[in-house]
Amino acid sequence: MRNRLYLVKFGGSLITDKTKPYTPRIDIIRRLVDEVKEGISMGFRIIVGHGGGSFPHVSASKYRTHLGFVDKDSRYGMAKVHYDAAKLNGIVVSEFLEAGLNAFSIQPSAIFIVRDGEVEDIFIGIIEHLLDYRMIPVVYGDVVIDLEKGCHIMSTEEVFKGLSLHLLEDYDINIIMCEIVDGIYTKDPFKFSDAEFIPIIDQGNIDEVRGYLSVSHGIDVTGGMRHKVDILFELAKHGINSIIINGLIEDNLRRVLLGEDVRGTRIKY
Amino acid sequence: MRNRLYLVKFGGSLITDKTKPYTPRIDIIRRLVDEVKEGISMGFRIIVGHGGGSFPHVSASKYRTHLGFVDKDSRYGMAKVHYDAAKLNGIVVSEFLEAGLNAFSIQPSAIFIVRDGEVEDIFIGIIEHLLDYRMIPVVYGDVVIDLEKGCHIMSTEEVFKGLSLHLLEDYDINIIMCEIVDGIYTKDPFKFSDAEFIPIIDQGNIDEVRGYLSVSHGIDVTGGMRHKVDILFELAKHGINSIIINGLIEDNLRRVLLGEDVRGTRIKY
Repeated sequence: MRNRLYLVKFGGSLITDKTKPYTPRIDIIRRLVDEVKEGISMGFRIIVGHGGGSFPHVSASKYRTHLGFVDKDSRYGMAKVHYDAAKLNGIVVSEFLEAGLNAFSIQPSAIFIVRDGEVEDIFIGIIEHLLDYRMIPVVYGDVVIDLEKGCHIMSTEEVFKGLSLHLLEDYDINIIMCEIVDGIYTKDPFKFSDAEFIPIIDQGNIDEVRGYLSVSHGIDVTGGMRHKVDILFELAKHGINSIIINGLIEDNLRRVLLGEDVRGTRIKY
Repeated sequence: MRNRLYLVKFGGSLITDKTKPYTPRIDIIRRLVDEVKEGISMGFRIIVGHGGGSFPHVSASKYRTHLGFVDKDSRYGMAKVHYDAAKLNGIVVSEFLEAGLNAFSIQPSAIFIVRDGEVEDIFIGIIEHLLDYRMIPVVYGDVVIDLEKGCHIMSTEEVFKGLSLHLLEDYDINIIMCEIVDGIYTKDPFKFSDAEFIPIIDQGNIDEVRGYLSVSHGIDVTGGMRHKVDILFELAKHGINSIIINGLIEDNLRRVLLGEDVRGTRIKY
């Protein structure tokens, strides 16, 4: 039997105050770290990935880094976004170390090269070895080399995709996404009281769900739910199942790791 | 003609206060960054590497990380040393960004895998692309995966060696080592007033120099001069010349980059 590997995401909106640049929500990070600790104590391999939230946001938007190299300042922008994203990563890793866990930061920009956003090359060695050592690789949304656009903001979901497609042979992989909502809804639940919760996304309703997430009245509050669902559904085709849960609710992550039933949107094929 | 590439080292003893844990010498870092800026403005490609000084020292010594995995706490030690080394790297990169330079941190642990300290695998892509972009990769002494010992503390010199042997085909490489002494002496210059300065190390005197650096009355104050000389002489065989200069002296680095004559120990074949 293959070993179980969890890829756990701490959403950027969850672990930072999106209204204030460079402001981590330490209490939440600390609680999530404690919940991860349960999974580790159960012998699971875990890779943690986190979004950047309000850390790289200012510089990424100033230098329009999501567009790649657009003008003479783009390279400086790439450098600044990389630095800002790493800064939050340092805070997250520090909390893991405080909790006595062997967390080891890995820069996605050092191990991925992409072309127009799609992975062209990957150096998976360090990740494989850290998992063998029963350590916790901690990755994050980062700006990576793009052979077409110059650079590319690689989301945590894209990093998870790149890693898991290379680890699939050796591990039984599950993804847990901790966000600031319970999962996917038919409309933006923060704006529409008639938004309906979607407990499962699979072949039966994926097109319908994509429709909900495409409509312009903005379900995008949590940083690109359409982007997340597209990637997670693609991974589901490879047998990698995901659940999106509300990381604001204490014990949600811990309970999923323990195999308990938690409110969330499950994505499978 | 091949492009010129400088590998510039900021010694750990130079950029931190070795007597106080986690204490950077910001004024010196800032000045060295300004001096690097001159080289950049002349169109040179530059990779910066720095030692860890008093940052990873406490944890590396506590967990005996230089020995590899020795007990049940070694993995935690590896994680802690990695974090502490990255912390100083963040400070250095921050000063480059403040000076308007496109500095981009790369974790050696993400791109190198070694066996008993010797490079077994390297992912050079990110470094090559950053140089093509005329950006400044910033590397540092880090703890890397060792297939034999578990982990290995890879010095900045070892990182430089690993990188330069892979970049040799495309670049004309020179190494500039900024330390806290003028270069190599026959004895520890801090302890012996009759220590004689050695301006050049080459085939003619390398064995003699190794003899000086091996004697037990401790020339090792600046963090392993023997280790440095061994690696730099090996690189000299590949046509990569080095100079060790005193980074405490203002303008020394800038003047070397401008091609001026500076007091220092030159290492060639």
